[in-house]
Amino acid sequence: MPTTLAQVPFTFGLWTVGWSAQDPFGDATRAPIDPVESVHRLAELGASGVTFHDDDLVPLGASTADRDATLARFRAALEKTGLTVPMVTTNTFSHPVFKDGALTSNDRGVRRLALRKVMRQVELGAELGAATFVMWGGREGAEYDGAKDHKAALDRYAEGVDAVASFIKERGYGMRIALEPKPNEPRGDILLPTVGHALGFISTLEHGDIVGLNPEVGHEQMAGLNFTAGISQALWQGKLFHIDLNGQHGPRFDQDLVFGHGDLLSAFFTVDLLENGFPGGGPRYDGPRHFDYKPSRTEDLEGVWVSAAANMEAYSLLAERAVAFRADPQVQEAMRASGLEELARPTLDEGESPASLLRTEGDLGVEILEESERLGSRGYAHVHLNQLALRHLLGAV
Amino acid sequence: MPTTLAQVPFTFGLWTVGWSAQDPFGDATRAPIDPVESVHRLAELGASGVTFHDDDLVPLGASTADRDATLARFRAALEKTGLTVPMVTTNTFSHPVFKDGALTSNDRGVRRLALRKVMRQVELGAELGAATFVMWGGREGAEYDGAKDHKAALDRYAEGVDAVASFIKERGYGMRIALEPKPNEPRGDILLPTVGHALGFISTLEHGDIVGLNPEVGHEQMAGLNFTAGISQALWQGKLFHIDLNGQHGPRFDQDLVFGHGDLLSAFFTVDLLENGFPGGGPRYDGPRHFDYKPSRTEDLEGVWVSAAANMEAYSLLAERAVAFRADPQVQEAMRASGLEELARPTLDEGESPASLLRTEGDLGVEILEESERLGSRGYAHVHLNQLALRHLLGAV
Amino acid sequence: MPTTLAQVPFTFGLWTVGWSAQDPFGDATRAPIDPVESVHRLAELGASGVTFHDDDLVPLGASTADRDATLARFRAALEKTGLTVPMVTTNTFSHPVFKDGALTSNDRGVRRLALRKVMRQVELGAELGAATFVMWGGREGAEYDGAKDHKAALDRYAEGVDAVASFIKERGYGMRIALEPKPNEPRGDILLPTVGHALGFISTLEHGDIVGLNPEVGHEQMAGLNFTAGISQALWQGKLFHIDLNGQHGPRFDQDLVFGHGDLLSAFFTVDLLENGFPGGGPRYDGPRHFDYKPSRTEDLEGVWVSAAANMEAYSLLAERAVAFRADPQVQEAMRASGLEELARPTLDEGESPASLLRTEGDLGVEILEESERLGSRGYAHVHLNQLALRHLLGAV
Amino acid sequence: MPTTLAQVPFTFGLWTVGWSAQDPFGDATRAPIDPVESVHRLAELGASGVTFHDDDLVPLGASTADRDATLARFRAALEKTGLTVPMVTTNTFSHPVFKDGALTSNDRGVRRLALRKVMRQVELGAELGAATFVMWGGREGAEYDGAKDHKAALDRYAEGVDAVASFIKERGYGMRIALEPKPNEPRGDILLPTVGHALGFISTLEHGDIVGLNPEVGHEQMAGLNFTAGISQALWQGKLFHIDLNGQHGPRFDQDLVFGHGDLLSAFFTVDLLENGFPGGGPRYDGPRHFDYKPSRTEDLEGVWVSAAANMEAYSLLAERAVAFRADPQVQEAMRASGLEELARPTLDEGESPASLLRTEGDLGVEILEESERLGSRGYAHVHLNQLALRHLLGAV
Repeated sequence: MPTTLAQVPFTFGLWTVGWSAQDPFGDATRAPIDPVESVHRLAELGASGVTFHDDDLVPLGASTADRDATLARFRAALEKTGLTVPMVTTNTFSHPVFKDGALTSNDRGVRRLALRKVMRQVELGAELGAATFVMWGGREGAEYDGAKDHKAALDRYAEGVDAVASFIKERGYGMRIALEPKPNEPRGDILLPTVGHALGFISTLEHGDIVGLNPEVGHEQMAGLNFTAGISQALWQGKLFHIDLNGQHGPRFDQDLVFGHGDLLSAFFTVDLLENGFPGGGPRYDGPRHFDYKPSRTEDLEGVWVSAAANMEAYSLLAERAVAFRADPQVQEAMRASGLEELARPTLDEGESPASLLRTEGDLGVEILEESERLGSRGYAHVHLNQLALRHLLGAV
Repeated sequence: MPTTLAQVPFTFGLWTVGWSAQDPFGDATRAPIDPVESVHRLAELGASGVTFHDDDLVPLGASTADRDATLARFRAALEKTGLTVPMVTTNTFSHPVFKDGALTSNDRGVRRLALRKVMRQVELGAELGAATFVMWGGREGAEYDGAKDHKAALDRYAEGVDAVASFIKERGYGMRIALEPKPNEPRGDILLPTVGHALGFISTLEHGDIVGLNPEVGHEQMAGLNFTAGISQALWQGKLFHIDLNGQHGPRFDQDLVFGHGDLLSAFFTVDLLENGFPGGGPRYDGPRHFDYKPSRTEDLEGVWVSAAANMEAYSLLAERAVAFRADPQVQEAMRASGLEELARPTLDEGESPASLLRTEGDLGVEILEESERLGSRGYAHVHLNQLALRHLLGAV
Repeated sequence: MPTTLAQVPFTFGLWTVGWSAQDPFGDATRAPIDPVESVHRLAELGASGVTFHDDDLVPLGASTADRDATLARFRAALEKTGLTVPMVTTNTFSHPVFKDGALTSNDRGVRRLALRKVMRQVELGAELGAATFVMWGGREGAEYDGAKDHKAALDRYAEGVDAVASFIKERGYGMRIALEPKPNEPRGDILLPTVGHALGFISTLEHGDIVGLNPEVGHEQMAGLNFTAGISQALWQGKLFHIDLNGQHGPRFDQDLVFGHGDLLSAFFTVDLLENGFPGGGPRYDGPRHFDYKPSRTEDLEGVWVSAAANMEAYSLLAERAVAFRADPQVQEAMRASGLEELARPTLDEGESPASLLRTEGDLGVEILEESERLGSRGYAHVHLNQLALRHLLGAV
Repeated sequence: MPTTLAQVPFTFGLWTVGWSAQDPFGDATRAPIDPVESVHRLAELGASGVTFHDDDLVPLGASTADRDATLARFRAALEKTGLTVPMVTTNTFSHPVFKDGALTSNDRGVRRLALRKVMRQVELGAELGAATFVMWGGREGAEYDGAKDHKAALDRYAEGVDAVASFIKERGYGMRIALEPKPNEPRGDILLPTVGHALGFISTLEHGDIVGLNPEVGHEQMAGLNFTAGISQALWQGKLFHIDLNGQHGPRFDQDLVFGHGDLLSAFFTVDLLENGFPGGGPRYDGPRHFDYKPSRTEDLEGVWVSAAANMEAYSLLAERAVAFRADPQVQEAMRASGLEELARPTLDEGESPASLLRTEGDLGVEILEESERLGSRGYAHVHLNQLALRHLLGAV
């Protein structure tokens, strides 16, 4: 694994290390960082790529000439370092114009503006070779149930995402869209609040074939949901297009801690899934391991880079432990004892119909009770298996 | 509305009023209630129907003869009172055999047993004319991420639901399945934890056309999610097949309070949606208003019936207020001012392509900023609209 | 009640209506408001007072001359409108210097600076006749358990609060300190996270006699705690010195909604306690009804004043309903039936010792069971009482 | 450390391993375990003591003769194994009689009954040499704000606890009371919901000198609170009398997982505090490491003992890592760099008065800004320190 780990594609948003640490109750504690410097520093630390919102790189309102100059400098840094841009995204949340949403603002002018802003960044992403276009609808939502016609809002959301998808197809960009769910903050309630809601939404789209998900650890945990279970369903539905790794302490504000600095056991099983796949095989995630975190507001510029490295180190340590966990014969035996293999076997025999399974010549009520008693005494030894995971995680094997 | 309200179809689970009030830390405080008595009492209070798990009516393991006798008594009560059975469901969670799940138990024997138990109740539901078959997979899940192969579990879950759906179709029952999501309790994490996850799951089914949702107020609120927004998405996707109304105080154990005794403003907007539909029209819910609540453990038998009536009274009061809210010209004006009508208008003009919207002869970056500044100053007056709702809710108009 | 309600002392923080609506993901959507304008507008709307952090009124770093000029204008507005300043507080959270805390920063220089900044505002508050000095230690805390020596932090916190209290006493200001608890945000975890922790802390202070609490609705609800129960304990301990009213939807970011726009049933019982006191009498709160809320980011300047008025209207409507609730003979009967009066009676008879209560000549084990069975069948009819509250709240009586 | 760890006093409640695994939605999955067997099995696994509620050992209603026989068998098992009984507690929550509370039931007869039941177990605890008497008021609370007169409830709670404390003193038992806070479940809201509320309450008691706390990991985390910070305050106030270790995943039902199977980083810092004390010294906890957990419902009897051992193993592994963490010179250097030592130094110089600190000959406003700018640029390197903790926790040093 050490060899493969060296090839794990770690990527960072420019807005992560570049965060100036302004929060709802306080001013910035750090100076902005030149994106070109971030590219160089991240490359030195071992990252393989960077990602960005349009405005992270080119300030909102920059003229074409200024934009071109900025892009030229940025491309030069990429070339020099070898860093790629596997994903880009659009900022449709910072400017006051998006205060009631972007693709679902009650104001049609805002919706049209948002679409243009998004498509412009799609163009840039395509130029830079990005395979994924993330859409986080952080302002799509409301504080008050009466403030949105939810049917109309979902219609507009679908129209907007389909518009972007059709634009991508028309231009032949070969890019896929990844929706990023979040339950709340900055809006009181955000549309498509979880991985599940986004999966449901995608199933209604005209161009849903190129629309999937970019789940973020902390966002699902803000709803008290199990992140590994969530991305498992996305993977199972063929929709885990990208991932945002970070740390969070349950339902509260969005903390964006270093990956591994939140719920550590959960992080272990997330890495286990990403590196080892499902126990019985199935679809694998092969995209970047993307960190969407914030260096704590207490840190100075040196602390920024220390925190960036901490993400990659935490992931790598967890990956080593996860690989050893799966390779351990005692773990494999415990998985069998817990019935993990048996779950892969279909419930019905080949060709068996549900109706034939129901059929009986006995007294069905009595049979069901007897069968329940017979099968009910089995223990599943899940605690033992979890303790083995804990030992591996703690390096105590 | 008073006239129509008289016709609101209120229904109750037999397990709600019949709950003996045993909880994780305490013994039953009330004697069991004969289902036949519940039918009579609920009819007197104004309910139009009852629903039940197989074991609520016929004890697990009853012989066919005993079962027939019980059913005959029950049918007689239904006939006498005029109550219907619009929904039934199966208990796949109480017996120890289901401790690791039913349709997704790691034990294949358990999965087969569960399927039989479910189909048997489908048969009974069909006999009684139930239009909806609810499936709450309360034990489908795990305490530990390592204890389930999530890919296999979702495969089995889909296999199981499809089996039941195909059985319904094959028998020509004309019944629809409604999945009931819940994030946790009794399992540490439950599969299909929210309305969204279930919508995503359904989109993968072979027989998904007859599979929809039975969202429960408290279950979504246990994940801190907005219930009205959740059922709006289900409705938008044509999947709101049934509904469970009750009360909850956010992320904590499942409280099953009387409807209206939890988050009251949220309950108001839920009733507003159920009674009035989306502001701009669209799909409507026309099924039963089903209460899935528990009379508090402090109440005696008389208190049970008081609490049952409280649900219907709360719903009716909220419905009156919601109807008046929508009919109020000041509210209609405030909705327009907030832009609710405008959201119904497509973002793109008829025939307009996304690419043509992007196209410009000016400097796009400059244009986007200028447009943002121009549109950004608008206020949406959402607080005013919410305050109007509050006044109506408080009967202060 | 209408007459007394007219005299309810409603107060607002200058930072509430004056909030420019910058949030963690977005820029300001409103221009700053001149505090003098706020004084006039709030007076027109019916408020009786304003409160402020030092930097809300006089920008950080203003020279003494500029400060004097600003204060003169402000005092003139107060005189003209008749508004009072019943409370002031210090901003020890916005400037980067406080990023690791103020009174508990790991940096002693910062702690000394914070103390000076606090005492300077104490002086100003005293000049303006403020009776209460609020201390919200929003930055006192940590993201990581290892980042603080909690024993030292609490020592420093106590030292700091005692220093301010002794300064107040020494100067003879007759002012009291009110600590404002909050569980998290902006820090990962904040010291004194709830009303309870602050009550415990105060009991250790040297000058705890003039230190009490300023509980905020949303802050307690961010921990899923019952606000009315929390302020009841504070009142019972003689420590409810001030109160911050607003709205929140459970554990998530700090929403600061209009009072009544969050958990409405809880708001009703909070107002019931503030206006009517405990059912059986006891200590009353007689301070200002202070709103610490934020006009939603979607609102324009007109919406700011609409939202300010909404707070007072919501409180007044709830107060009317709470007074009617308590005066309703049916409610009084229901309270008796639920045993509220009986709870006021001491458990032990006058002069009875615990040991004598235990003593028996029978078989104690058997007695306990028999007594349990005898007393256990009683119902408490709590649901009926709550339904009466709901009716009053909805104006349906 | 291995040597000292061998002496860590691990204790278990009889109700933990003995839990039959009945939950709100399911029947028992395991047979009851004879307490005498539990004593033997726990002794073999390395525990040093057991604890119990009255009814765990002697069934409610047992005659004195039966009770004596049961106690004799139990004492024999203790003697044989060398296990101690360092703590006992009373069940005032299971029987229906306590449905509205025990010491704070609205029914005075219930309150008197509860007091007798509690004192009877105090007597037994004293006989068995228990140093601590835990009081978990799981039923002291309400579902509805109107159902309790909170002032009267707190009066009765204080009366009850003081009665027990005075009984202990009068009898000369030398035992201390430890209150166990919990926010909710089984009641909607429980009185004294957190460590903090209990600390505040204790400060009002007549016999508060022998009343302290028994905080439980999961209970604080159900309110989203930081457990290590909570017990730090209890320790700082001299009130950490006992501790309940287990695992939980944030705000949801009470999970009672194995210690270490919940929030692992938090568990590490809890063990760090218990084993190493505060970084700068101060009060230490020297009581039992008591596990109050539940073997998952999926486990059979063998799994029960595996899970019991898992608690002790997890604690021991964390303790080893915590000791190594503190001993690591790199960690010590990082703590210094983060300012942990500096926090121990008083903010005021010896003899310095707050007023003299405020005094200046310059322009105070200008001074404060300049000082803020000067001190504000410092970084605290908290992320680096936390990453060192992570490495130690993962055994990666």
